[in-house]
Amino acid sequence: MPQSPLHSARLIALDWGTSSLRAYLLGDHGLTLQVRSSTHGIMRLPELRKTSEDNRQKRFEAAFDSICGDWLRQFPSLPVIAAGMIGSAQGWKQTKYLHLPLNLGELGKHLVPFETATGRRIWIVPGLMDPSPPMNVMRGEETQALGLLSERTETREPGRLFCLPGTHSKWIDVVGQEIRGFTTFMTGEVYSALRSHTILGRTIPSDLSSSFNAEAFDRGLDLAHRAGSKGLLSDIFTTRTLALAGVLVPEEQADYLSGILIGHEVHAMFHPRRDSSAGVLRETPITLAGDEALCRRYESAMKRFGRVDIHFSPEAMQHGLWHISIQAGLL
Amino acid sequence: MPQSPLHSARLIALDWGTSSLRAYLLGDHGLTLQVRSSTHGIMRLPELRKTSEDNRQKRFEAAFDSICGDWLRQFPSLPVIAAGMIGSAQGWKQTKYLHLPLNLGELGKHLVPFETATGRRIWIVPGLMDPSPPMNVMRGEETQALGLLSERTETREPGRLFCLPGTHSKWIDVVGQEIRGFTTFMTGEVYSALRSHTILGRTIPSDLSSSFNAEAFDRGLDLAHRAGSKGLLSDIFTTRTLALAGVLVPEEQADYLSGILIGHEVHAMFHPRRDSSAGVLRETPITLAGDEALCRRYESAMKRFGRVDIHFSPEAMQHGLWHISIQAGLL
Repeated sequence: MPQSPLHSARLIALDWGTSSLRAYLLGDHGLTLQVRSSTHGIMRLPELRKTSEDNRQKRFEAAFDSICGDWLRQFPSLPVIAAGMIGSAQGWKQTKYLHLPLNLGELGKHLVPFETATGRRIWIVPGLMDPSPPMNVMRGEETQALGLLSERTETREPGRLFCLPGTHSKWIDVVGQEIRGFTTFMTGEVYSALRSHTILGRTIPSDLSSSFNAEAFDRGLDLAHRAGSKGLLSDIFTTRTLALAGVLVPEEQADYLSGILIGHEVHAMFHPRRDSSAGVLRETPITLAGDEALCRRYESAMKRFGRVDIHFSPEAMQHGLWHISIQAGLL
Repeated sequence: MPQSPLHSARLIALDWGTSSLRAYLLGDHGLTLQVRSSTHGIMRLPELRKTSEDNRQKRFEAAFDSICGDWLRQFPSLPVIAAGMIGSAQGWKQTKYLHLPLNLGELGKHLVPFETATGRRIWIVPGLMDPSPPMNVMRGEETQALGLLSERTETREPGRLFCLPGTHSKWIDVVGQEIRGFTTFMTGEVYSALRSHTILGRTIPSDLSSSFNAEAFDRGLDLAHRAGSKGLLSDIFTTRTLALAGVLVPEEQADYLSGILIGHEVHAMFHPRRDSSAGVLRETPITLAGDEALCRRYESAMKRFGRVDIHFSPEAMQHGLWHISIQAGLL
C-alpha cells in the first residue's frame, strides 16, 4: 500500500457486490490510499435489532457507515461512487441497465445519483444488458472493463478480451473503447454447489486451507479440453470414479474438479461449437482481473490451451471507478 | 397390474439404489405379480432406536424386512436377487466391479451370494467398470441393459443404445449381447443442486406439483442445441436473465432449466466435440428405460434433435433380474 497522506483524498469508491463490499479511498491520479473490505454484500447486510418497514434501507446505511463512516465524516465534500449489485433490484437503489453496444468513454454520462438517509449523495454506475437472445447482464464488470482500458497496454490490436473470473465469470469483448458483447459463466457458483451439495463433495475435505494442487488441476483441464469430451455433465463424474479407483486422493479432488470446470469455460471461449470462426482469435490479447489466486488458475488454463498473450491486472475496479468519476465531472 | 395368483411366485427381486428401494414379486415367465417401493435407499435407511457397532447392518435388515418380510415368510424357499447400490462400498455387501467388455449373456455367472442375519441368501448382481481413462462405473444399469436385450425388439441393427435417465444418467452402447462402453451424466443431481443451491432457484416455486411446461422445456432444449452455445456453464445463466426480463415466468423456469440440462446431455451424445464420427449414428435405435415422465422428456429432446427410432420400456429392471436368475440357475 502506498504511503500517501490521507489529506490528498479525492474520491470514495465502492465495489458493492452480492457477497462482499469493498471501499477504496483514492488520492491524486487515482492512487489507492486505503482499501477496506467486508462481507456486507447486498445479500449479507448486517442484521439490525429493531425491524421496521424500511429495515432493508437501514441495513444498507449500516453497512455503508460501518465500512467508511469515518471517511465520510473526515471528508464531507468528497464525491462517493459505487458499482456492482448495489444498483440491482435487490440493491440499495435500482438503476436501469444500459444496452449494448456501449462506448466506455461515455459511461460517466449515465451515473445515477442517490441520496442516503443521512444526506450523502452516492453516484451509482448502471449495469449493462445485451438484449439480443438469449440475453445477458452485468453489474460492476463494466467498471472493471473501463479500468482495464485506462491502464497502459502494449498491444496494438484493436480487439481485446477481458476475463473477470468469479462466482459468475464474465468475458468481455472490447474493440477500441466499445463493449461489443460479453458472456457469463456460472463457474464459481456451480463449483460451490457441486462441492457442497452433490456426491462429488462427499470425499472432499472441507478444509480449504490446503495448498493448491497444480497437477490435479491440470489433469482436470486436460479432461475438459480433450477431443472426446461429452461435456461437463459427464466429465465431472470422473471426480467420483477416479476417487473410487484411488487415482485421486481426497486432497486432489477439489482442484481436479476446479480444473474440469475452469477448463470447460476456457475451452468454450476458445473453441465454440461447430462454427470455429466464432472463437477467440489466437492473437487477441487477454487481460484477467479480479482475485489473484483465481486469475492464476485461469491463466494456467489459457496457457495450457495454447495462448501466450495474457496479462493480469489487480486494480481494475479502482481504476474504473476513478475514470468514470472523471468522465462524470465529479473530480 | 396383472391379476395372477401369488402362489405362482417364483422370484423376489430387488432394485436397491441410493435413494430408493423397489421390490418385485415375479411369477411364471417373469410376470410381475406385485411391486412395492420405499425411500429406504442405501443412503436413506430406516433409523433404529438402539445404536450398536453393527447398526448399519441392522438398518439394512430392517429395510429388507419392511419392504418384503411377508413375502420372505410366505415363500421361504424363493430365491432373492438384488441389483444396484446394495453392492457398493456403502451398500449391504460390497461386490467387485466386472470389467468391460461384458457379454450380458454371462452376467448370471458372476452373482455374489450373501447371507443376511436371519439366514436368507441374497444374490447380488455386481456392478460394471470401464477401466479405460477417464474411467466409468455403474451399478444396476447393467441389469436394466440385460432386461432391455431380453425384450422383443423389431430392430435388425446389431448396435443399440440404451438411455437410462436419472440422478446419474447412463447411456449404454451395446452390440449384440455385449456392452462395449457407457457414459455417465450427472444431469439429475446437477439439476437438483442448481435448483436448490444457486441463484437460479431463487425465483423458482418450490411446489413441484405444477404441470409440465413443454414450451419452456423446448426453449431450453433449443438453447442447448444451438450452434453458438458456449456450453452449459454459460447457457444456464439465461434462466436468470430471461426471468429478470420477464420472458420466463416463475412457473416456466424449472422446465426451461431442465430443458437446458437434458438438451446438453442429449446433444453431447449425438454431436460430440470435433470428431463427429464418434457420435451416435443416426440409424442406431435408442431404447429408454426408467421413470416414465423423465424418459418422455428425453424422448422429446431426441426427437427435437432429429431422431426417430426411439422406444420406451417400463419394466427393464424386472426383466433383467429375471433373466440373470435364469442364467445363474436360480430358477
